[in-house]
Amino acid sequence: MVVVMSPGATDEEIAHVVARVESVGGEAFVSKGVERAIIGLVGDIESFHHLNLRALPGVADVHRISDPYKLVSLQHHPQRSTVWVGPEGAQVPIGPDTFTFIAGPCAVETAEQTLSAARMAQSAGATLLRGGAYKPRTSPYAFQGLGEEGLEILASVRRATGLPIVTEVVDARDVEVVARHADMLQIGTRNMANFGLLQAVGESGKPVLLKRGMTATIEEWLMAAEYIAQRGNLDIVLCERGIRTFEPATRNTLDISAVPVVQATSHLPIIVDPSHAGGRKDLVVPLTRAAIGVGADGVIVDVHPNPEEALCDGPQALLGNELRELAQVVRRLPPAVGRAAATVRS
Amino acid sequence: MVVVMSPGATDEEIAHVVARVESVGGEAFVSKGVERAIIGLVGDIESFHHLNLRALPGVADVHRISDPYKLVSLQHHPQRSTVWVGPEGAQVPIGPDTFTFIAGPCAVETAEQTLSAARMAQSAGATLLRGGAYKPRTSPYAFQGLGEEGLEILASVRRATGLPIVTEVVDARDVEVVARHADMLQIGTRNMANFGLLQAVGESGKPVLLKRGMTATIEEWLMAAEYIAQRGNLDIVLCERGIRTFEPATRNTLDISAVPVVQATSHLPIIVDPSHAGGRKDLVVPLTRAAIGVGADGVIVDVHPNPEEALCDGPQALLGNELRELAQVVRRLPPAVGRAAATVRS
Amino acid sequence: MVVVMSPGATDEEIAHVVARVESVGGEAFVSKGVERAIIGLVGDIESFHHLNLRALPGVADVHRISDPYKLVSLQHHPQRSTVWVGPEGAQVPIGPDTFTFIAGPCAVETAEQTLSAARMAQSAGATLLRGGAYKPRTSPYAFQGLGEEGLEILASVRRATGLPIVTEVVDARDVEVVARHADMLQIGTRNMANFGLLQAVGESGKPVLLKRGMTATIEEWLMAAEYIAQRGNLDIVLCERGIRTFEPATRNTLDISAVPVVQATSHLPIIVDPSHAGGRKDLVVPLTRAAIGVGADGVIVDVHPNPEEALCDGPQALLGNELRELAQVVRRLPPAVGRAAATVRS
Amino acid sequence: MVVVMSPGATDEEIAHVVARVESVGGEAFVSKGVERAIIGLVGDIESFHHLNLRALPGVADVHRISDPYKLVSLQHHPQRSTVWVGPEGAQVPIGPDTFTFIAGPCAVETAEQTLSAARMAQSAGATLLRGGAYKPRTSPYAFQGLGEEGLEILASVRRATGLPIVTEVVDARDVEVVARHADMLQIGTRNMANFGLLQAVGESGKPVLLKRGMTATIEEWLMAAEYIAQRGNLDIVLCERGIRTFEPATRNTLDISAVPVVQATSHLPIIVDPSHAGGRKDLVVPLTRAAIGVGADGVIVDVHPNPEEALCDGPQALLGNELRELAQVVRRLPPAVGRAAATVRS
Repeated sequence: MVVVMSPGATDEEIAHVVARVESVGGEAFVSKGVERAIIGLVGDIESFHHLNLRALPGVADVHRISDPYKLVSLQHHPQRSTVWVGPEGAQVPIGPDTFTFIAGPCAVETAEQTLSAARMAQSAGATLLRGGAYKPRTSPYAFQGLGEEGLEILASVRRATGLPIVTEVVDARDVEVVARHADMLQIGTRNMANFGLLQAVGESGKPVLLKRGMTATIEEWLMAAEYIAQRGNLDIVLCERGIRTFEPATRNTLDISAVPVVQATSHLPIIVDPSHAGGRKDLVVPLTRAAIGVGADGVIVDVHPNPEEALCDGPQALLGNELRELAQVVRRLPPAVGRAAATVRS
Repeated sequence: MVVVMSPGATDEEIAHVVARVESVGGEAFVSKGVERAIIGLVGDIESFHHLNLRALPGVADVHRISDPYKLVSLQHHPQRSTVWVGPEGAQVPIGPDTFTFIAGPCAVETAEQTLSAARMAQSAGATLLRGGAYKPRTSPYAFQGLGEEGLEILASVRRATGLPIVTEVVDARDVEVVARHADMLQIGTRNMANFGLLQAVGESGKPVLLKRGMTATIEEWLMAAEYIAQRGNLDIVLCERGIRTFEPATRNTLDISAVPVVQATSHLPIIVDPSHAGGRKDLVVPLTRAAIGVGADGVIVDVHPNPEEALCDGPQALLGNELRELAQVVRRLPPAVGRAAATVRS
Repeated sequence: MVVVMSPGATDEEIAHVVARVESVGGEAFVSKGVERAIIGLVGDIESFHHLNLRALPGVADVHRISDPYKLVSLQHHPQRSTVWVGPEGAQVPIGPDTFTFIAGPCAVETAEQTLSAARMAQSAGATLLRGGAYKPRTSPYAFQGLGEEGLEILASVRRATGLPIVTEVVDARDVEVVARHADMLQIGTRNMANFGLLQAVGESGKPVLLKRGMTATIEEWLMAAEYIAQRGNLDIVLCERGIRTFEPATRNTLDISAVPVVQATSHLPIIVDPSHAGGRKDLVVPLTRAAIGVGADGVIVDVHPNPEEALCDGPQALLGNELRELAQVVRRLPPAVGRAAATVRS
Repeated sequence: MVVVMSPGATDEEIAHVVARVESVGGEAFVSKGVERAIIGLVGDIESFHHLNLRALPGVADVHRISDPYKLVSLQHHPQRSTVWVGPEGAQVPIGPDTFTFIAGPCAVETAEQTLSAARMAQSAGATLLRGGAYKPRTSPYAFQGLGEEGLEILASVRRATGLPIVTEVVDARDVEVVARHADMLQIGTRNMANFGLLQAVGESGKPVLLKRGMTATIEEWLMAAEYIAQRGNLDIVLCERGIRTFEPATRNTLDISAVPVVQATSHLPIIVDPSHAGGRKDLVVPLTRAAIGVGADGVIVDVHPNPEEALCDGPQALLGNELRELAQVVRRLPPAVGRAAATVRS
């Protein structure tokens, strides 16, 4: 940590900062400049936080130097991780050597629609099925998902297709029932900072897909992952899904740079959601190509057998020709950047 | 609603949109321009949502015209509301005729610190006490609040001072216990879109202080209020606390325009949090003056008897001289814009 | 300046940084922490910039500590400035003791419209007239202003009313002609970083109204002012007019906190443009009240005798009742925050 | 265009809107809904703009439906364009069939540094040389470029290497001299809305590289291109270089979706600048792979023989190993998405 004193800070004020730092066992190195002094702190950063240095007289600013996360940091875990999803004997990897294609309907509506979307996804090359039974919706008047009935539909579709299930959980009280049916728990963008929910999935024993908050910095996102990790669960996959900016042409702005930035600081796998980022089906294929190019570990895509009838996010769901084009991209492009398709390990 | 067809849309595609609209009992008026056709829809907007018009062939865009919220809208409730906070016989109003000053520590740390902060707040003119027993923190390593013990401290401070209590609830599972002790439940910025929590406070029977999500549009914020209202609770006060922008000089950018914008579309009271918006104690007084000027119904401010020792947000907590200046502003300026100080109704 | 080394930086890399700093006459203080070293630099900051420290091996980050502007900084000029606008004997102040009301049409369209708008402005209490002869428009198909003919209209209206003229200049080649007619040169939001234009107005000998770039940080804005000051012109008034954010309810988000933030770091006067910030005439009065409350040195407002016929920004121009309400606010509220109306000094 | 009336609008107000539209030869179709009326307009959109409909009584909102640009629109020019850069007999294409690699130093500092950077660029596969002689800098105290001397250095390096030159122009007064020496004129991000400069390059007879304003929407960017096109110059290449958002980990947020969004609405070629977008050299290679993946027509990259000594943007300049890796990516990846490297046409 570095403490920057204001130009008019007195020697007493500087000494006060030094004394506070030393009172918790830290060391303080003072550099006096022409205009102002700066103080470098060495020691246990957690103890410094409690000092409230920014509130001391004469202090202009405090810069944190180290990353605030630990368990998810590359620094203490220099090998990038692979997370395995699915039941023993049928697990699909998400990690640095492979490219994992996850697809399915935004929402589970009926058994027929879900099975049909799963068949579409599978024939396009997907090895994990996504589908929402609990939907966080901006409007209380919109379709909120089928709940536990939706989970049972997903489980039956897994039996029929063999695809492990990724599904969202929106309330800490539902974690147990969702974990009983699903292979991977998704935390949606609106819940990235719902700390009670993060702790609950951290104790669930299931892999977690953690979407970035639509206005979270990368550091805040990694801190959210740290909440999960702290409860003993390191099977976390991050998902970049677009951030909120001033540009209205797309629903969100896909922050493609987040992929290499995360890979430079954390060992966790990271995938991209081109459907929710753009909110337009004509962008799904080019953004998937960008995700593969930039080095993402996978993508998660909306498909629906009949987008016109979808109860959720129909305009971005792929079908027919578009899906065939996507299938081709997902099969052919990863090898050009040194990755294999992710398939089941039995 | 208005459906905009793409320039190359065919007559069949236009007819298909019209047929879909009519199939749910709506009317569709087609205007054919030189370049493209637009279709105006008349009827029940909820039924149109399920049509997924944006996914139909030939459709370029769909514009919603009406506001998506109802219960909180000024349209069906043209009189601005007053919300009363506190026990029978000692209620404090928040509404269009008064200016309500809420103050207290960011976090409840000890009984002494809380009582001392409450006395500071009260002598500066505050008529409601804020203080957090449950704290949503970005880092799992930061102080998370005292929980139920904190609620008991708040209750004892209310007995000592007579100030009704505003405190945050962060998890739907805690709503019952918080509602038992507090006079007003606060939903923090990170939980504005935690729909399960919104529904739980909607059923609690207590007034709710709903902070704006730091990256929520005003419309999304009003939709969050609609979630609470839909459960039968219309005692909602909105709180503008700054949004996330590119400007680093302040912790958030106080969107002062949100106050008149909300007042032009909703009947709910709206207050301002100058402490969290700026994140700097030197901005609290000028931003409070701005809030009074713009026509806010109150402010909520951090005070702490000893900011150096605060476990949470010390740098923005007022004390001594600053608080005296604030007290003066809050007493003298509201009358210049036609408002009285909000005091207890017995 | 503070140089933060990466965790794995070697002693040689640290020594290399120190040597570079010393090679230009600076001093470097090394603090070695558990995880990484930080190096505090003392000496002439300009010489450090040329060192390109961020590109050296082992360097993780470089934090600048001092403000990058000098002439406009409060540090070397602790008294807040007053800028006087208008011809000798009829000057209007903009500064810390007064509140200056500037009004007029967005664009000069005809002599009649301009005179009529000026009369409206004057009778509402304005002491400076705004009006654009050169208009920067997003579309090449929109009205671009009358150019020199517009300047002549403004000059004749000044003769008729006695109001000094504030008008925009958009091209360095036009500075001379505009300076010949106008009393104050306005730099619009789109030209805040047009450095050639800034230098040209810096040499014009006329006071400058410098609007904030709609996506400029406060620091970048003060650096733009520094460009003008560096050419010998310190008669600069800053104008906050809203920044670009994700919120669609207003044309821009008025960053009201910018007023006290600027006042804490620069001696230059600062005013607010409530018309362009909100883009809605119903927000002009509340945002003007907010500007007075927060401590701005004035406001600049669009008025038009017939907004329906305005060639530019009609929807935000005030007339009739609204203007009467504004006149009352501008007359009555400043005294409540300790300011007098700004009137002519003869 | 669609005019949305407010809920309480009267029949007279609706009739007034219709009459205004008809007065300029347009047609107005009224759809009366339960809550409010909407009016669809058909006819010449330019004439509607002058009506100032948003200012009429009873009007709540006006939605524009058509794109505001024409010459650069795909609608009237359905074939994507190729722009050829360089002297007769040695032209390099930028367009839909090729991938063009442009590289060079951020700033021209000396003849040796520029030649050396050009050789680096060429051996890595670049077929166009970038380099700045005029630099727009945020600080008036930073290096501002060599001006005409820099142009002469660039011309001599072109003679030595055969690489055509792309260089920035920052002031309309310099367009003539820059056009005399350069093969392509670059408009930088800060000047995207400098309309006088846009018109000047539109008349220069040289191809233009138009960088996106760091806070411009895609529509505003295409309007800036329209300004150039309107002066008779359609040889315009767009360059996405990152937008300003809340994320601090990168200098700007590369809006990778802008590439397919532009390609869906305009016929102009579009390239990506991974150096300025990220501001970090470790991101240049992954972002270049993303650019190729998404379908960009080229990239423009900073290289410098000695980044430690660079006078501008050293931290993002590639050298040695990194450049070799980039060379490999630029050679191998475009064929995997169906593009050839862009080479000289003699």
